[in-house]
Amino acid sequence: MPRTDPGSSLLLTDLYQLNMLQAYLDEGLTDTAVFEFFVRKLPPTRGFLVAAGLQQVVEFLEAAQFTQEELDWLAASGRFSPEMLESLAAFRFTGDVHAMPEGTAFFADEPILRVTAPLPEAQLVETRIINLLHFQTLIASKAARMVLAAPGKALIDFGLRRAHGAEAGLLAARASYLAGFDGTATTLAAPRFGLPIFGTMAHSFVQAHPTEEAAFTAFARARPDNVVLLIDTYDTEAGAEKVVALAPKLAQEGITVAGVRLDSGDLAAHARAVRPILDAGGLPDVKIFASGGLDETALQAFTESGAPIDGYGIGTALTTSQDAPGLDCAYKLQAYAGVPKRKRSEGKATWPGPKQVYRSYDAAGGMTADVITCDGDDQPGEPLLAPVMASGRRIGALPALADARAHAADQLARLPAPLATLAAEPAYPVQVSQALRALADQVDRESG
Amino acid sequence: MPRTDPGSSLLLTDLYQLNMLQAYLDEGLTDTAVFEFFVRKLPPTRGFLVAAGLQQVVEFLEAAQFTQEELDWLAASGRFSPEMLESLAAFRFTGDVHAMPEGTAFFADEPILRVTAPLPEAQLVETRIINLLHFQTLIASKAARMVLAAPGKALIDFGLRRAHGAEAGLLAARASYLAGFDGTATTLAAPRFGLPIFGTMAHSFVQAHPTEEAAFTAFARARPDNVVLLIDTYDTEAGAEKVVALAPKLAQEGITVAGVRLDSGDLAAHARAVRPILDAGGLPDVKIFASGGLDETALQAFTESGAPIDGYGIGTALTTSQDAPGLDCAYKLQAYAGVPKRKRSEGKATWPGPKQVYRSYDAAGGMTADVITCDGDDQPGEPLLAPVMASGRRIGALPALADARAHAADQLARLPAPLATLAAEPAYPVQVSQALRALADQVDRESG
Repeated sequence: MPRTDPGSSLLLTDLYQLNMLQAYLDEGLTDTAVFEFFVRKLPPTRGFLVAAGLQQVVEFLEAAQFTQEELDWLAASGRFSPEMLESLAAFRFTGDVHAMPEGTAFFADEPILRVTAPLPEAQLVETRIINLLHFQTLIASKAARMVLAAPGKALIDFGLRRAHGAEAGLLAARASYLAGFDGTATTLAAPRFGLPIFGTMAHSFVQAHPTEEAAFTAFARARPDNVVLLIDTYDTEAGAEKVVALAPKLAQEGITVAGVRLDSGDLAAHARAVRPILDAGGLPDVKIFASGGLDETALQAFTESGAPIDGYGIGTALTTSQDAPGLDCAYKLQAYAGVPKRKRSEGKATWPGPKQVYRSYDAAGGMTADVITCDGDDQPGEPLLAPVMASGRRIGALPALADARAHAADQLARLPAPLATLAAEPAYPVQVSQALRALADQVDRESG
Repeated sequence: MPRTDPGSSLLLTDLYQLNMLQAYLDEGLTDTAVFEFFVRKLPPTRGFLVAAGLQQVVEFLEAAQFTQEELDWLAASGRFSPEMLESLAAFRFTGDVHAMPEGTAFFADEPILRVTAPLPEAQLVETRIINLLHFQTLIASKAARMVLAAPGKALIDFGLRRAHGAEAGLLAARASYLAGFDGTATTLAAPRFGLPIFGTMAHSFVQAHPTEEAAFTAFARARPDNVVLLIDTYDTEAGAEKVVALAPKLAQEGITVAGVRLDSGDLAAHARAVRPILDAGGLPDVKIFASGGLDETALQAFTESGAPIDGYGIGTALTTSQDAPGLDCAYKLQAYAGVPKRKRSEGKATWPGPKQVYRSYDAAGGMTADVITCDGDDQPGEPLLAPVMASGRRIGALPALADARAHAADQLARLPAPLATLAAEPAYPVQVSQALRALADQVDRESG
């Protein structure tokens, strides 16, 4: 029996959300609230981020309701009033959502999503909204760096096994594809998201056979459409020689060897040794794929040294965003009942009110600067946040994943030159408008 | 409608597993294989790891089968033979599993799980076994460091929002509790795992009210059983003064303030300022909780300086294992059809054959050394791997989570003194037995 997805449960939330809801309902504090999701500060190794996860947020908000089983558990917990339980039974998200399209490059303090809804609704969905937007944005941003570091190379997500659980593996496949990867090894990503999937063989496959030749032959016959052979189980160059010896025999069966994979040792050195072996053996079209502990720094080094590698499988560094596995992000109250609000906690102060981000471009279409301002304070440039849900339902269709991927590629092409390398500096210029500064001062004066 | 859990799908696997299965079935390579899961190398900031995730692995293996929908998708993909599809339709895990109990401390190269099953079965389940064991072990190991760094303090998991997806949030709650945390803010962890759950209020709650007093009063009335008030939204010490002023009024309603929470600024300094305010205000029993970007290094500093903090909420650092978000782990073929196997790839060589780990203790019960040897080669000390599944079903009940938690606490108490601090050195002594070295030499000679 397939189990229920914890990600579809409204109990996948911090208990304090439910505690606050009880108080809000007791007090009748159900007026309209505005919350925004933004990243306070970029990790030191990120010059930009790539927005991702909106599709899953919209699906979550549209489907969000408590099951009878969950309501029974809440009642049995004895924590909540009968009125509260009634209200939870009727819970549906009825608010509006504005957001940057998936694939948009963005920077610190820029809201990428705004929720406008009755306070209890906007509060209850906080945890899962952050959970979804944070993770996919984290992975798309990491993947974008790998795309920039390996131009023209095939990039495949190999990271399911060390992703943090099932949903992380699945959504990392989606987020990395959105950012420009070519596909994933995660099978379920094909039926779930329509992603291209790729798979070769494990060392155990080679080891389970008496010889490498036997393993390669068996694999080629079983998967003749995409014969990629793992040649490093015992000795990489000897493995390449075996491929050369085997290829003509397979050709007689109508099977073409498509590639070899290297997964250990000095990958660039092995690629430089293997390429001439393949070429001299009449296999110039056989591609070399590399995997094993790679990150964008390694990819960039291969690119700079011109290592003869045609594609990469990337695992842990991608799906855990290893150098920066978390973003300093928040979903904060910006207004309640039409009154702008601002948090002033040390080091965590926020800009008040619903906001918009305007982006300017140079004549060649390159990004030049952003301005964060109050929603409604028109500025030159392109407004980045657009309505995506009204009264709890999506407004038209969201972009298809292929279109979001094309948008991300367009964004990477428009980045200022230094940020299109792996440099995180100089920081992209983001200005806070006069109108927004004035509003912040006013809020400070009034809440004294 | 609740959705299906991706974690219960057998398509949540690397495509290469299915590709290899096709070849194994074509060749009739369905003899018994032995695979073991182990960590090759500890992260530089870990002196030990804590085994976790076995419960979920056993549940996965017992329930594993393809749904009709998944079989239809596999057939429509055109990748696999009719015989393969028939075999997948009949797939059940029928193998044996040996493992270290959850909560056991372990070290590099020590198998914590062994699967003995027909090769295609043992291969197909690889990805999800790694995905489950890696993540919970990662989090339990990180959590254990926090437990060691903050003796006698309450530790609560606050990390769902920045965990990597739904399952990561939920399983991090479980793994951190197993390692000694007191509970979690993740509501769903209570019905799913029986964990104690805790929740206070967000800054937005304070901001949605005209004053902090109004917010505190409303919260106390709504959740009178556990009144913990967040006092840093505007000014922490002023917030504490407001609690002092409010407490007698709440007392008249029969409501006791249990604690205050600090979430920004210099937490130790604020705690030192707040404690005398509360004490002078007649509230010596009100606890001080701290949260906000904490990790074990911060906890240790608070402990060493004697900061008057009674408990901590830990978020991102815990649920992403921020300093080491991945472990260099593997699930490797150790034997096929009774013949020991060994991978010799550079930097990734493995010890062959099914193995056992023996642990020795000093007179006081402290751990002194481990020996890794061939299964069946009896050594002095306690064998750490025990049978947990036979022929695809669990052997008796697995330990309850509370018992696994007690076992983890016992393990932490038995660690060598240097490892019971946050030091990762000196490395715990793990020896490889003569028998295992001899077997490795023999395998090398025979596979020459």
